[in-house]
Amino acid sequence: MLNDYDKIIIGIDPGTNVMGYGILGVKGKTPSVIALGVIKLSRFDDHYMRLHRIFERVLGLVEQYLPDEMAIEAPFFGKNVQSMLKLGRAQGVAVAAALHRDIPIHEYAPLKIKMSITGNGAASKEQVAEMLRRILHIPQERMPEFLDATDALAAALCHYYESSKPLAPKGCKSWKEFIAKHPDKVK
Amino acid sequence: MLNDYDKIIIGIDPGTNVMGYGILGVKGKTPSVIALGVIKLSRFDDHYMRLHRIFERVLGLVEQYLPDEMAIEAPFFGKNVQSMLKLGRAQGVAVAAALHRDIPIHEYAPLKIKMSITGNGAASKEQVAEMLRRILHIPQERMPEFLDATDALAAALCHYYESSKPLAPKGCKSWKEFIAKHPDKVK
Repeated sequence: MLNDYDKIIIGIDPGTNVMGYGILGVKGKTPSVIALGVIKLSRFDDHYMRLHRIFERVLGLVEQYLPDEMAIEAPFFGKNVQSMLKLGRAQGVAVAAALHRDIPIHEYAPLKIKMSITGNGAASKEQVAEMLRRILHIPQERMPEFLDATDALAAALCHYYESSKPLAPKGCKSWKEFIAKHPDKVK
Repeated sequence: MLNDYDKIIIGIDPGTNVMGYGILGVKGKTPSVIALGVIKLSRFDDHYMRLHRIFERVLGLVEQYLPDEMAIEAPFFGKNVQSMLKLGRAQGVAVAAALHRDIPIHEYAPLKIKMSITGNGAASKEQVAEMLRRILHIPQERMPEFLDATDALAAALCHYYESSKPLAPKGCKSWKEFIAKHPDKVK
């Protein structure tokens, strides 16, 4: 039952050929996988047909799983302007589906996600998938064929880790800074 | 009355600071302006707040004016990857609002729009606005302050011109080619 969870996060890995999604449910302090999959777009030649498909499917996921928040993987460089425009459009229609339902969106750079899941910002997609399998106890047979799905789930789990970090105390940017300023408070 | 028109076209000039829109009504062979304006986004610092605002306002326009088609101005180059990603997202949420209502979308390059309205692909935004004022008999006092609005209207009018062109005859890409192949048919 979806209402057994304290929080549901939808992770999206936007792409114009394959878009990955992962639905993460959190109960107490335990995250687990609710759903995991991809939206295949390569069979549509027309760019707008693809955008329509992304919007419809993401809206469908939002209505089915009622997530509280959305996390997306947001690459910022390394592509040419033409492909960035297309990627931006794909991201745009995906987030529009969430905005339409007033769901807050959080974006994370790929390096941040890899670091958060594996402790290594240069980890491969396979390493990220393997770490997710262990953390979330995903049975081998439920592991998806496409790594876009695990990438999306990684964004959702990264957001869970980030949002459940204790807030830094007043006047400090982080707990690290607080401890450096007040070594006496640490016993 | 909106149902006096044979066709309604919404034109959009997407931008991340100001987004222009123009609603064009066509009765018989006469296009006229139904509405013209801009969505100002600069007061929102947050990128997602801007995207939300674009989606909501475009969806509002679609529900208010019930357009049959959408035309957008789609630049493809001349910006860096970061700004193209942002522009792509803005375009994405704007078109998502139309896709959500199953409205077909047509995109036109700026050069094509300028050529179609003024006969000059290098025309300035002011020249495009002035030509629209004359073609559509817009009273001077109704001319908008922002040229993003007239740019959007230009996209809508360009689409009207393009979609009402007679189709080229079978076996030819254009009427020009047909005439070149069959000079005897021209009297």
